[in-house]
Amino acid sequence: MSIAALRWLEPPSGPAIELLDQTRLPTAETVVTCTDVLALVDAIKRLAVRGAPLLGIAGAYGVALAAARGDDVEEAAEMIAAARPTAANLGWGVRRALGAYQRAVDDSDPAVQRDAPRAAVREAAAIAEADERACGMMAELGLDLVPAGARILTHCNTGSLVTAGEGTAFGLVLAAHKAGLLAMLWIGETRPLLQGSRLTAYEAGRAGMPHRVLADSAAASLMASGEVDLVVVGADRIAADGSVANKVGTYGLAVLARHHSVPFVVVAPVSTVDFGTADGASITIEQRSAEEVTHLAGQALAPAGSDAYNPAFDVTPPGLISAIVTETVVIQPVTAGNLRVLGAES
Amino acid sequence: MSIAALRWLEPPSGPAIELLDQTRLPTAETVVTCTDVLALVDAIKRLAVRGAPLLGIAGAYGVALAAARGDDVEEAAEMIAAARPTAANLGWGVRRALGAYQRAVDDSDPAVQRDAPRAAVREAAAIAEADERACGMMAELGLDLVPAGARILTHCNTGSLVTAGEGTAFGLVLAAHKAGLLAMLWIGETRPLLQGSRLTAYEAGRAGMPHRVLADSAAASLMASGEVDLVVVGADRIAADGSVANKVGTYGLAVLARHHSVPFVVVAPVSTVDFGTADGASITIEQRSAEEVTHLAGQALAPAGSDAYNPAFDVTPPGLISAIVTETVVIQPVTAGNLRVLGAES
Repeated sequence: MSIAALRWLEPPSGPAIELLDQTRLPTAETVVTCTDVLALVDAIKRLAVRGAPLLGIAGAYGVALAAARGDDVEEAAEMIAAARPTAANLGWGVRRALGAYQRAVDDSDPAVQRDAPRAAVREAAAIAEADERACGMMAELGLDLVPAGARILTHCNTGSLVTAGEGTAFGLVLAAHKAGLLAMLWIGETRPLLQGSRLTAYEAGRAGMPHRVLADSAAASLMASGEVDLVVVGADRIAADGSVANKVGTYGLAVLARHHSVPFVVVAPVSTVDFGTADGASITIEQRSAEEVTHLAGQALAPAGSDAYNPAFDVTPPGLISAIVTETVVIQPVTAGNLRVLGAES
Repeated sequence: MSIAALRWLEPPSGPAIELLDQTRLPTAETVVTCTDVLALVDAIKRLAVRGAPLLGIAGAYGVALAAARGDDVEEAAEMIAAARPTAANLGWGVRRALGAYQRAVDDSDPAVQRDAPRAAVREAAAIAEADERACGMMAELGLDLVPAGARILTHCNTGSLVTAGEGTAFGLVLAAHKAGLLAMLWIGETRPLLQGSRLTAYEAGRAGMPHRVLADSAAASLMASGEVDLVVVGADRIAADGSVANKVGTYGLAVLARHHSVPFVVVAPVSTVDFGTADGASITIEQRSAEEVTHLAGQALAPAGSDAYNPAFDVTPPGLISAIVTETVVIQPVTAGNLRVLGAES
């Protein structure tokens, strides 16, 4: 979030949530101002604001916005959490802010009750601060997994646009770059919405690291030619068995990494782990519109009326994941038993 | 070629080669008329004309065009063959027409010598006719590999736009559709140039078969969900050991197919087999410009100046290929020994 992906505005200009519209990057840096929950839900659905940790922060501030406006806060919380069903952090952030708000409302002290909207804002800010710290800790813990001269392949976008810090997977790549360990960042373009070529290439360029983009389908031959030492990705939801839901294409990279004996590492804060979801098969996968595949910026890429299969995410089973790096511990090997240590913390 | 991907024009309007500009499909059906070899080489390089068998036909007619114009035919043949180094059929078609031309030139009968340009035209027409027959035979032989209710995944474009008949891989899919065996054709969009979504979806729609396009990276989760019974692709060059060079992304699909126990079938005429190339490592892979990945129809998809890894092809080792369907025999398993039976024919 170091490039102001999300800002909370106080009165008199607020209450409002200001978002950097990520659908317009890198062509334009456009700000969207959400003065009510409907505008925020729309921004979440069309991916103007996106990325697991940032969605947690946005969800919490969304609850704060509803509270500040005097809306029905529970109803608003439900609407926000349902905007993207696979994103674990979104529902988690919403529940955190809603809990803080409700505890204040239920307090015996009328002053605390009156201050309930502020309690939600404070909780959202606390989530953002904790996320920033978590990014630093994940990068530090993950660095042990990065060899010298590493050529790292990543997918989608996981940097400062989607966290309150330097990022999850991208935060680790940036730490490797700063430590002089990074020889090349390979960036899968991440069709259909091109978060890799649009956003990660933008962040890699800003950080001055060596990088090249590629069509997602070129990753296989890149691995076969021995040009990839490590695959590093984020996560949108991690089930209790260690199955990882992440941007569509992640699972394919995990299969390819295994075939080429390349380590496959997931970097995600503990808030991404959902112990209420038993396994990969229990994860609801959001299906998105065919138009995201068949059109780009209003231009048709397929004959009129073409239908498309367009899941937003896929699920990688724990057996294909070398390690999950969290802010408290590196889970390795990825098993339900090893994940359980996080249960007490989340 | 049933939708007129290539036409040879005789005088008075010719000699010329008329091409359907495949870079403009499906938005526009634009014809490019090549009146000299330079124009043809440009059309081949920018993929206005493309696809293994059609390139063989285009290469042969290119030699005929040079001969009809009175150009240096050997020099023209070299230029055409070098336009796309990985495409085995291009060089093969060029050599076939050049051989026919040179035999006529070297004939003791002055009438045959004078008729040498016509000999090149006749050879090109014979290649096209043989290709049309080969398509029918490949479809017939390959049909044994298609189960009832088949959900087939394909990549790139291999139909009547790129052959003189109904296609290689797509020809088999079409035969399966006509035989009532096809439940669904899944079409990988085939980044960066989108031959799947632009061209194969266009041909599938014309044929009235059930089809859906997908981002190439969504193939993995599609296979994991059990929605793919068979992967069918074409080939641009097959080495003597059975390694298959084809559109980038093919190799990744082969690894995924193996991981999910889905049969992976290559459909290609014997002319695609190059016994002069010993193995996959010996295949020259054409690297194309970064702009194909970073731009689409003039629009930037990545920050200005972004570099890209953009191989046109990748190589699938024989061990990942269930069968190679040719017009004379189905090679199964794919081994150098089994391929050798084609040597006498090519």
